[in-house]
Amino acid sequence: MDFASFLTSLSTSFIIFVVLMLLFAWLSAKPGNNVVYYPNRILKGMDPFEGSSKTRNPFAWIKEALSSSEKNVVTMSGVDTAVYFVFLSTVLGILVLSGLILLPVLLPVAATDNGVKLNAHATTSNGTFNQLDKLSMGNITSKSPRLWAFFIATYWVSLVTIYLLWKAYKHVSWLRAEALKSPEVKSQQFAIVVRDIPLAPQGQTRKEQVDSYFKAIYPDTFYRSMIITDNKQVNKIWEELEGYKKKLERAEAIYAASKTAAKPEGTRPTNRTGFLGLFGEKVDSIGYYNEKISETIPKLESEQKVTLREKQLNAAVVFFTNRVAASSAAQSLHAQMVDTWTVFDSPEPCQLIWTNLKLRYFEREVRQYVVYVIVALTIFFYMIPITFISAITTLENLVKLLPFLKPVVKIEILKTVLEAYLPQIALIVFMALLPKFLYFLSKLEGIPTESHAVRAASGKYFYFSVLNVFLGVTISGTLFRTFKTIEKNPNKIVEFLASNLPDNATFFLTFVALKFFVGYGMELSRIVPLIIYHLKRKFLCKTEAELKAAWFPGDLGYGTRVPADMLIVTIVLCYSVISPLIIPFGVMYFGLGWLILRNQALKVYVPAYESYGRMWPHIHNRILASLILYQLTMLGYFGIQKFYYTGLLIPLPLLSLLFGFVCAKKFYPAFQKPALEVAAHHLKEVPNMELIFRSFVPPCLSSDKADDDQFEDAVSQVSRSTSFA
Amino acid sequence: MDFASFLTSLSTSFIIFVVLMLLFAWLSAKPGNNVVYYPNRILKGMDPFEGSSKTRNPFAWIKEALSSSEKNVVTMSGVDTAVYFVFLSTVLGILVLSGLILLPVLLPVAATDNGVKLNAHATTSNGTFNQLDKLSMGNITSKSPRLWAFFIATYWVSLVTIYLLWKAYKHVSWLRAEALKSPEVKSQQFAIVVRDIPLAPQGQTRKEQVDSYFKAIYPDTFYRSMIITDNKQVNKIWEELEGYKKKLERAEAIYAASKTAAKPEGTRPTNRTGFLGLFGEKVDSIGYYNEKISETIPKLESEQKVTLREKQLNAAVVFFTNRVAASSAAQSLHAQMVDTWTVFDSPEPCQLIWTNLKLRYFEREVRQYVVYVIVALTIFFYMIPITFISAITTLENLVKLLPFLKPVVKIEILKTVLEAYLPQIALIVFMALLPKFLYFLSKLEGIPTESHAVRAASGKYFYFSVLNVFLGVTISGTLFRTFKTIEKNPNKIVEFLASNLPDNATFFLTFVALKFFVGYGMELSRIVPLIIYHLKRKFLCKTEAELKAAWFPGDLGYGTRVPADMLIVTIVLCYSVISPLIIPFGVMYFGLGWLILRNQALKVYVPAYESYGRMWPHIHNRILASLILYQLTMLGYFGIQKFYYTGLLIPLPLLSLLFGFVCAKKFYPAFQKPALEVAAHHLKEVPNMELIFRSFVPPCLSSDKADDDQFEDAVSQVSRSTSFA
Repeated sequence: MDFASFLTSLSTSFIIFVVLMLLFAWLSAKPGNNVVYYPNRILKGMDPFEGSSKTRNPFAWIKEALSSSEKNVVTMSGVDTAVYFVFLSTVLGILVLSGLILLPVLLPVAATDNGVKLNAHATTSNGTFNQLDKLSMGNITSKSPRLWAFFIATYWVSLVTIYLLWKAYKHVSWLRAEALKSPEVKSQQFAIVVRDIPLAPQGQTRKEQVDSYFKAIYPDTFYRSMIITDNKQVNKIWEELEGYKKKLERAEAIYAASKTAAKPEGTRPTNRTGFLGLFGEKVDSIGYYNEKISETIPKLESEQKVTLREKQLNAAVVFFTNRVAASSAAQSLHAQMVDTWTVFDSPEPCQLIWTNLKLRYFEREVRQYVVYVIVALTIFFYMIPITFISAITTLENLVKLLPFLKPVVKIEILKTVLEAYLPQIALIVFMALLPKFLYFLSKLEGIPTESHAVRAASGKYFYFSVLNVFLGVTISGTLFRTFKTIEKNPNKIVEFLASNLPDNATFFLTFVALKFFVGYGMELSRIVPLIIYHLKRKFLCKTEAELKAAWFPGDLGYGTRVPADMLIVTIVLCYSVISPLIIPFGVMYFGLGWLILRNQALKVYVPAYESYGRMWPHIHNRILASLILYQLTMLGYFGIQKFYYTGLLIPLPLLSLLFGFVCAKKFYPAFQKPALEVAAHHLKEVPNMELIFRSFVPPCLSSDKADDDQFEDAVSQVSRSTSFA
Repeated sequence: MDFASFLTSLSTSFIIFVVLMLLFAWLSAKPGNNVVYYPNRILKGMDPFEGSSKTRNPFAWIKEALSSSEKNVVTMSGVDTAVYFVFLSTVLGILVLSGLILLPVLLPVAATDNGVKLNAHATTSNGTFNQLDKLSMGNITSKSPRLWAFFIATYWVSLVTIYLLWKAYKHVSWLRAEALKSPEVKSQQFAIVVRDIPLAPQGQTRKEQVDSYFKAIYPDTFYRSMIITDNKQVNKIWEELEGYKKKLERAEAIYAASKTAAKPEGTRPTNRTGFLGLFGEKVDSIGYYNEKISETIPKLESEQKVTLREKQLNAAVVFFTNRVAASSAAQSLHAQMVDTWTVFDSPEPCQLIWTNLKLRYFEREVRQYVVYVIVALTIFFYMIPITFISAITTLENLVKLLPFLKPVVKIEILKTVLEAYLPQIALIVFMALLPKFLYFLSKLEGIPTESHAVRAASGKYFYFSVLNVFLGVTISGTLFRTFKTIEKNPNKIVEFLASNLPDNATFFLTFVALKFFVGYGMELSRIVPLIIYHLKRKFLCKTEAELKAAWFPGDLGYGTRVPADMLIVTIVLCYSVISPLIIPFGVMYFGLGWLILRNQALKVYVPAYESYGRMWPHIHNRILASLILYQLTMLGYFGIQKFYYTGLLIPLPLLSLLFGFVCAKKFYPAFQKPALEVAAHHLKEVPNMELIFRSFVPPCLSSDKADDDQFEDAVSQVSRSTSFA
């Protein structure tokens, strides 16, 4: 890629970005689109435009985003989102502070030397892209004293990163503490989850066993317990029932709509009872679904009773009458045999992965390691299944499976194109499904809460992207081949990395530049959700509930967003000194990202859960890992440049490790367990324990009619503590 | 060493052992020696011979030891001692079960082959000790199918070890739980130690700060706190006072003794006031010490006040009104910043290393790593300072320092001998001081309890002895040189070990054999303490207190005993299959050890502290490490014997690692922290909190006269919780 085409693609994507921004300004002003552009505000019962200038200046959102405080973010979108912004602003800070020194110093130093001609090895691009080469460290003559400037820059970037990470960790720790000590009653702060309950002694129900165990230890603060049950069956029936209810509602809406027209009696909608509603007998929908519902309700009720009585598993949620007791119980060792009665602090009820709670201690351990192996195999050999699948999915085979494709395949041109692109399509599909696959694997580990599973998936995705995209492209070959080479020369790994890195500076410069303009433009304008919403509204949605489902925005999606950002952090950090021109692009990426996501967080996305910033230690460690990768790269690159004092860089990775160690000791445990001094803050009201308990009852077990008599029934044999603290 | 001289030295030491045992039978029957042979019984207020046959059969003690139950041991000597016996009997079990299979199978298999002649490499001794060589694995021809017997034996020993270790861990865990749930009130179960208390806010004393902090978190169960103070000054004065009191008592005893003689008025003892009582003015002792005491008491009292008010440090002991609250508080995270308000469960008051409590979190971390480095240096380069010291401490230099040696040095023979042995003496002195040095280092780490420091020292000593004695002798050279060799061929380490090991089988066989006869004979007969006691009684002791100090037996000394035993475990395990003849010697060592130490534990030693079996995980891991070392050795040795299926041994070390992992997960946390279900057991009486609190007041701060008014005074500003749970 030469300089002109780089500029062309840069300006093209900038134009796309401007167009998308204008589109956003225009579309978001239309009231009919409010549910797409302001769903978070609407769901919180706020006026979409409340507080913003009524003039609908197309750039008003920028002002609003800039003037919003962290407190706004916490209120509108929770601590997790606020922590995500701490991440963005920390990286932005690192890059700005680095750039302020590196750009004015290193660029002139590099530009006035001309090592490229002398030093064939140090070219930063494979093509004829010499204009940028002149501005990189590769342009410095070997052994030149000018390398001192780059040497100091290496230290500067490291120190800035460490300083800002320290501040950020402190701040996030404070944010978490503030949120946890909030005087609002949050049901999860009164509960702990107990797993690995041993077999109940003869003549005792599980409920009695759990109650007597915790009553003995916490005579004053134990409230009651809820045994985890195997809800597979009852859930199936409940979902069936909910489906019928929705379909009934829909049928009634269709009927009502048909009535308002010329025919006042309307046409009663019909459906077929067979597979997918395509086959079978034709029946009147309203009557059919009403009948189905009245059939299913008693089935559900009897199944609920059976589940509560007979399908109790070896896990429970235990409730305490005050926060300190619950926090303390959540982190204390209860049993002498440590693989029984294991506890952890309960997340929000909706976050509990109910089906994972029953897994036993060592089963979880085994699953974890098995999953690690699978992930490692996926990272190293992901090309094999793709090649395999694309070999199988030739057009001929596809036609056999999906006969309706036949006419398409007959068109010669289309056939050629499809055959050429099938492997790439397989790759694209794989990359699109990867986050879901990794999330699935994380759940398979036996992780009991959703936020934790998302973190675990995100971590796996980070390794995949750094190893395959960054290192893969850098070392320009498959990782597997690289490891073969490294195995033969284990001491050469740093040198190997360093000698390959500069060749790809230009590639990544373009990569970062293109990514943010188009990506963030799409993010802001929400073109795809908008189109989907309008299509659904027009052709599918009949009821209010269906309409809401059509525009419901989902959450920010840290699981994939953080690893994608982390990849950029890794790239920009690693190239920051070698090719400082990448810094402005990094600044743009994180600056724009901060701005646009601030808007989205405040107005669009609805957080699915709240983990009180537990994501941070995870992010922190990965930034630190990138920093160490950068330091090792520099160590190797200075070595290649034959700089005599390269050894003076060795303290840097050691310092980073030490810093990581100190942070892990000082801050991390408070993210794992709730600190008692935080939980000891006063509540603004006496908690309604019954309400707290009810919030943990899964929907398939809570019945509208009987008002949870079953639960009362199931616990009636154990007298409950009635003291409130 | 040939076979005859091996038998000679064996029988010599056996005769020594028999003589010592008879000596013990004779001496221990004399009532005048009761305080040497039965101090533990006497101190517990029991009749020395209670329960034993009055006939004083010289072997009665064996019957008593064999018939004593674990419960007796716990009652007489505590859980720690009982755990030590679990260790001895587990190892004994491993060796007996291994020997039952290995001896009858492997010895004939080895004896009927004659690989020694064919296979020059596989000799198990450097000399002409062929009789034993014929019975070892070295006598098997390479690639012979007879190696299958040794192969199966290798598995058998491993499986037996793992099975018995599992049973032992379970049993010790149960022992610990039983002891912790005892209905007796133990003051340490109601207290936690808090370190790293941040600076007190303006206008608050430390006491107020701690009280308000814990009152907020534990409104119902907090009793009161005791701030750790800097007692250096007050302790000095107190020790001075105690010294004067002892001397006064002694002077009075001398005076009284002189009175009973012909002169009814007696002679008043005198002493000199100067250095060591050798110089200065001669004064009347009774008057002088009385005067000194009345001078010191007000000094002590004012210093106590100053200490309590002004020398408060950043640590405290916090008391709770029930065991569960204290146990739970001891393992909960209190502060959001994790390097402040760190807690641990309090040990017995006497175990607290008061001076280490003030060290800050990261200071402790740094100290720990510094100590690790020092220990590593000591292990690898311990010969250097010894060589250096023995080079300096030539006789000429010694004479200059200690002029009174001059006449000794003039005797020519003595001079020659001394010069020849000085280096060896330096080595012996070093080895004798090493445990103390390692204990000193462990305390330097900032470890806050004595039992923990002993464990840490014991661990260090284990590494020293295994690396230097076992590996050092095996590889016959300094470790340093070995590491140089290994560095060049990192893959050869196992092979290297295996090829050197068999050469030394005979050496270790003799080592184990000689060690137990003489060592345990001395242990049982207590010749040295007996002589010292009688000498002191005759010439030094004047008062009852002095006499008691002369016979007070001290504790079992796990710190050095466990590593010494562990060395034997390592040796016997590693040679068990290669040279099965070592097994009977191992059985003798641990069998005799069990028997003799059972006697000593029941009758002699007085435990200095009780850590409720916390030593066990430490022992367990080291036995496991020995097992893995053994498995690796066998892997290498089978390789050298060119056995085709050597690879089938690879699962063994993996299995051991897995086993260690499972144990660490299942049992270990309950040894680190008190399990709540254990603490929740009922007490037989309502604890007297005042008494519990007093038991933690160090002697130098508790005053006889004022009845601890100072403490009352210091806490008076904070109202105390009076609820008892």
